[in-house]
Amino acid sequence: MSRFWSRIVHQLDPYVPGEQPRGSNLVKLNTNENPYGPSPKVLEAIRLGVSDRLRLYPDPASQTLKQAIADYHGILPEQVFVGNGSDEVLAHVFHGLLKHDSPILFPDITYSFYPVYCQLYQIDYRSVPLTDDFRIDVADYAQTNGGIIFPNPNAPTGCLLSLEAIETLLNTHKDSVVVVDEAYIDFGGESAIALIDQYPNLLVTQTLSKSRSLAGMRIGFAAGHPDLIEALIRVKDSFNSYPLDMLASAAGVAAYEDKAYFEQTCQKVIHSREKLTTGLTEMGFEVLPSAANFVFARHPSHDAQSLASALRAEGVIVRHFKKPRIDQFLRITVGTESENQLLLSVLDTLV
Amino acid sequence: MSRFWSRIVHQLDPYVPGEQPRGSNLVKLNTNENPYGPSPKVLEAIRLGVSDRLRLYPDPASQTLKQAIADYHGILPEQVFVGNGSDEVLAHVFHGLLKHDSPILFPDITYSFYPVYCQLYQIDYRSVPLTDDFRIDVADYAQTNGGIIFPNPNAPTGCLLSLEAIETLLNTHKDSVVVVDEAYIDFGGESAIALIDQYPNLLVTQTLSKSRSLAGMRIGFAAGHPDLIEALIRVKDSFNSYPLDMLASAAGVAAYEDKAYFEQTCQKVIHSREKLTTGLTEMGFEVLPSAANFVFARHPSHDAQSLASALRAEGVIVRHFKKPRIDQFLRITVGTESENQLLLSVLDTLV
Repeated sequence: MSRFWSRIVHQLDPYVPGEQPRGSNLVKLNTNENPYGPSPKVLEAIRLGVSDRLRLYPDPASQTLKQAIADYHGILPEQVFVGNGSDEVLAHVFHGLLKHDSPILFPDITYSFYPVYCQLYQIDYRSVPLTDDFRIDVADYAQTNGGIIFPNPNAPTGCLLSLEAIETLLNTHKDSVVVVDEAYIDFGGESAIALIDQYPNLLVTQTLSKSRSLAGMRIGFAAGHPDLIEALIRVKDSFNSYPLDMLASAAGVAAYEDKAYFEQTCQKVIHSREKLTTGLTEMGFEVLPSAANFVFARHPSHDAQSLASALRAEGVIVRHFKKPRIDQFLRITVGTESENQLLLSVLDTLV
Repeated sequence: MSRFWSRIVHQLDPYVPGEQPRGSNLVKLNTNENPYGPSPKVLEAIRLGVSDRLRLYPDPASQTLKQAIADYHGILPEQVFVGNGSDEVLAHVFHGLLKHDSPILFPDITYSFYPVYCQLYQIDYRSVPLTDDFRIDVADYAQTNGGIIFPNPNAPTGCLLSLEAIETLLNTHKDSVVVVDEAYIDFGGESAIALIDQYPNLLVTQTLSKSRSLAGMRIGFAAGHPDLIEALIRVKDSFNSYPLDMLASAAGVAAYEDKAYFEQTCQKVIHSREKLTTGLTEMGFEVLPSAANFVFARHPSHDAQSLASALRAEGVIVRHFKKPRIDQFLRITVGTESENQLLLSVLDTLV
């Protein structure tokens, strides 16, 4: 607290990211990182970029990266906006596209950064409860709004909404921007990017942190109608001209070029998720159907927070949210086969 | 223009960075990059960071980098805030520390991003004219304000304000945050970081883009009282948890460790600046006294915009601002000895 702070700073309740313990031997199943490293071709592309050219500013428009993303998704670079991780992209989305007279809508159980962005930019919001089985029902969004945003698959539940349901939402809210935050889409869903040509009110965000194993490089993007992209560019160019450094751009381009590695890695994670789900279910956990690289699970007779603490004591970190409706769940990132086995065997001693 | 844009987006007049031509043979003296590459030890540190670990999120607090900066300046990590280039740091400064009831003050001729941040965050400002010889006179700031910000040395003039004058400002505005934007300080000035223990209202920002040759990696920081730093952390954690990627942090740490390379490079630039100034003066240019890695010069009988165009036709880019009071000046980055010689010889055919 300080008299020097802008008024807004006093009101902020900042986002708390999952713990990033440094130099430890903990098994990290708490922040949904990919258990496999980036493609070797990505590492090689970064190494090639390490030169005296780092004295120069990057291309402020990150045109090469936009082109790579556009090519991959069969869209135009004018339909792509890139940023320093999808969190930065989302911040600009809230500021540039979601601040209107009516409150925006998002699920009551969702990415907990959304209400934080609303505080930062003083955006009214209303949270729409998930169904009793933790799904998004698009009928619940039939109310006046200044925009709609949700992750698909949702976080931390992992539950997927179909493209048909998304189209219903787009058609019934033609005057609102509908933002589909696809951080986890590659682990089992179909991207709504295929719909951006049809729906000028659709914006899709993705990250290279999860399915492309590049959390350490901070790359995210949005895809949508050029009018929506232009708003984001205007905000970005009023904030920071060069959000992506040279090596991040090089890494991103190479990540889209190595499609085989990407597909193989995703398949491995999906396969492990199914095994993990089976293992947890056999132990008595209820596991929500996940299309992400994590599972959301609760045990009928064991307190989630106690389980998280006991796991941590054994060197395994998972994420627990002290929040209404979900405080008996654990969010467990899908690790390597051996990490998942370790998790299961520790849990076996606890439940 | 789109009905989907937030109101603020319509009002923005975004910053336009200097041109970054890709893959050309142009001599780039337009964006104040360092003519020398980063320290070889920095390149090595980045290479060491290129590994499977990039699948993990970076430390959201960038503690190692904060410590390196703190050690270098003899301050505490709690007095340091780091961000994705000093532009991002400045954006958070405007949002978190400069939005008050009274207008903030900055020079009429200064970094042209300042009024853009004010638009973005809807901050009132008043610009304070530089003196006739383009200096900041602190007496002109004796008016009610919600904060004061200026670059030191100023951009694009290159003129330096003494620490004594800065202390006068700090003492006469004890209820305002005074931000000293030291992007160019290492090329001839003395940093106000030495004063942060005495003045709780002082915030100093710096970048690694200029004197540390790392424009391509996007690293900047602020130093000040922990209360000021806390405001920036709160804003950052409500915007993007991880603004610095792993390789940027590694580069930054190594840059502070190789003090000898840094000092040697700065000395070379300073030496070249003096030679360049002499050369331009001999050609009839008026060159403002510069403490930066650029000079700001005008010719009594040649139009600045025409000169810039003629230089460009010969493969040399400099920066020209179509703005009141300075539209007859060229801002010329100090290049390598041979780049400066080329510039002088092309100019010699034009004036």
